[in-house]
Amino acid sequence: MTKPVIALLGTGYMGAPMARNLLKGGYVLKVWNRSLDKAEPLAQDGAEVFGKAKSAVQDADIVITMLTDGAAVEEVLFTYDAAGMLKTGAMVIDMSSIKPAQAREHAAKLEAMGHKHLDAPVSGGTKGAEDGTLAIMVGGDKGDFEAAKPVLACMGRAVHVGPHGAGQLAKLANQAIVGTTIGVVAEALLLAKQGGADPDAIRDALKGGFADSIILQQHGGRMTSGNFEPGALSKIQLKDLNNILEEAGHLDLTLPLAEHMQARYSRLVDELEGGGKDHSGIYLELKDRNGL
Amino acid sequence: MTKPVIALLGTGYMGAPMARNLLKGGYVLKVWNRSLDKAEPLAQDGAEVFGKAKSAVQDADIVITMLTDGAAVEEVLFTYDAAGMLKTGAMVIDMSSIKPAQAREHAAKLEAMGHKHLDAPVSGGTKGAEDGTLAIMVGGDKGDFEAAKPVLACMGRAVHVGPHGAGQLAKLANQAIVGTTIGVVAEALLLAKQGGADPDAIRDALKGGFADSIILQQHGGRMTSGNFEPGALSKIQLKDLNNILEEAGHLDLTLPLAEHMQARYSRLVDELEGGGKDHSGIYLELKDRNGL
Repeated sequence: MTKPVIALLGTGYMGAPMARNLLKGGYVLKVWNRSLDKAEPLAQDGAEVFGKAKSAVQDADIVITMLTDGAAVEEVLFTYDAAGMLKTGAMVIDMSSIKPAQAREHAAKLEAMGHKHLDAPVSGGTKGAEDGTLAIMVGGDKGDFEAAKPVLACMGRAVHVGPHGAGQLAKLANQAIVGTTIGVVAEALLLAKQGGADPDAIRDALKGGFADSIILQQHGGRMTSGNFEPGALSKIQLKDLNNILEEAGHLDLTLPLAEHMQARYSRLVDELEGGGKDHSGIYLELKDRNGL
Repeated sequence: MTKPVIALLGTGYMGAPMARNLLKGGYVLKVWNRSLDKAEPLAQDGAEVFGKAKSAVQDADIVITMLTDGAAVEEVLFTYDAAGMLKTGAMVIDMSSIKPAQAREHAAKLEAMGHKHLDAPVSGGTKGAEDGTLAIMVGGDKGDFEAAKPVLACMGRAVHVGPHGAGQLAKLANQAIVGTTIGVVAEALLLAKQGGADPDAIRDALKGGFADSIILQQHGGRMTSGNFEPGALSKIQLKDLNNILEEAGHLDLTLPLAEHMQARYSRLVDELEGGGKDHSGIYLELKDRNGL
């Protein structure tokens, strides 16, 4: 069995380390990025660098997209018409975080053209991308998932979570939990601090118990040290919460905590800090609300 | 150095396994329980069983209380007057979950009588009590904490989190995080399910990432299987949230997520299921709210 030829579109802060892990996995890799300078360094890792997305995908069996949002994916696939250059039966694995509805639409368009599609957004940040330990949430046909598994395994742990769009739904579920957990960790630590307890000791005391999480330890640590350098931006957390509520709206669902946190992050971003701080900055919003 | 003699008051579902771990640690242990039948089986593990709290504590260097709530601790120490029978300089370690204000009051009363006090509530449930792996959150004098450390080490991992009452504050912080995380896990899994994704696969996909927690895996599992047998009771979660808001009120603090979850658990307990289900039953409240 020969290995599939892969094209990776989008070699930014996530895509570049993912590309390196695919090269380490022994795949022939063609890369493209909107600003070419971010793709060029990958030549010395063995990638073939292209100035146009259409050219990069021409002989590829698998096309991986790792772009900013749904509009960027739409543009590259259908406006620049990378999709039109694909070999029949090629598979597009979209690892960008986009709206579930967009992922379903892309899948339908590609299928109509005779191609396959998986939505496969990730969690784990640049560290996960570098270490090849990303959580990869995959929506689409189960058989396509099985076929893509060896490729995905170079980049992290892939789990099939349902049909087209389900990977993006899982990512939204992830972001709902992250944003709200940050919110309640802020309350717990502020309560402790105002009551005279030591918030760092409390994080230590809670370690390994029911209240423990990466959020409590990492984001909670940022709150007690007062260091809100990102990390993940509060304005991205707000965008995620907006997408969660939009998808909930499509499904006629009320999600009261997501609504509450959307209002809180709106206030943080629009009235307090402009969106450039880490999402653990909701601690600042809580303090402000309490006149502290 | 001779080991301190310990009296343990309250040998219920948590106190009994804690007593066994103290006996395994080689301590002389005197036990009392309001209903004697729950204390008597400990005789065969080597404990000396007493019919009155006053008698159990008479020669003890350390008195551990593991009782239902602050009123029960108050009654045993000051109404039944166990405190009046203590040797001068004896230490009371209250491992019950009570209000921070009550803990501070008990500490002051005992100090006025020449005794020491630590508030040391726990997290980890009966399994943690049996395995000796409880998270123990300790408020009080740092020197008293150091003196008590070998005793506490028989029952779990103890961390000093601040002055009198701080242990109880840490427990409230723990419960705020637990209750709210359960709430958002419910939303994330319902969103995923209604959108056609597989909630069990999503829990798997999120494992090890930023959204992961014991709550996501254990309580989330209860939600997808629809098994709400306790576990920890929804009415206890409601009591904890009431205590959190009461303490926040003393501190003139607004905690909007705790307020939100208090209203949600009130609705669950008072209008939907009566308080006897597991606290992961907030999933039922969310479904009901959505007409599902």
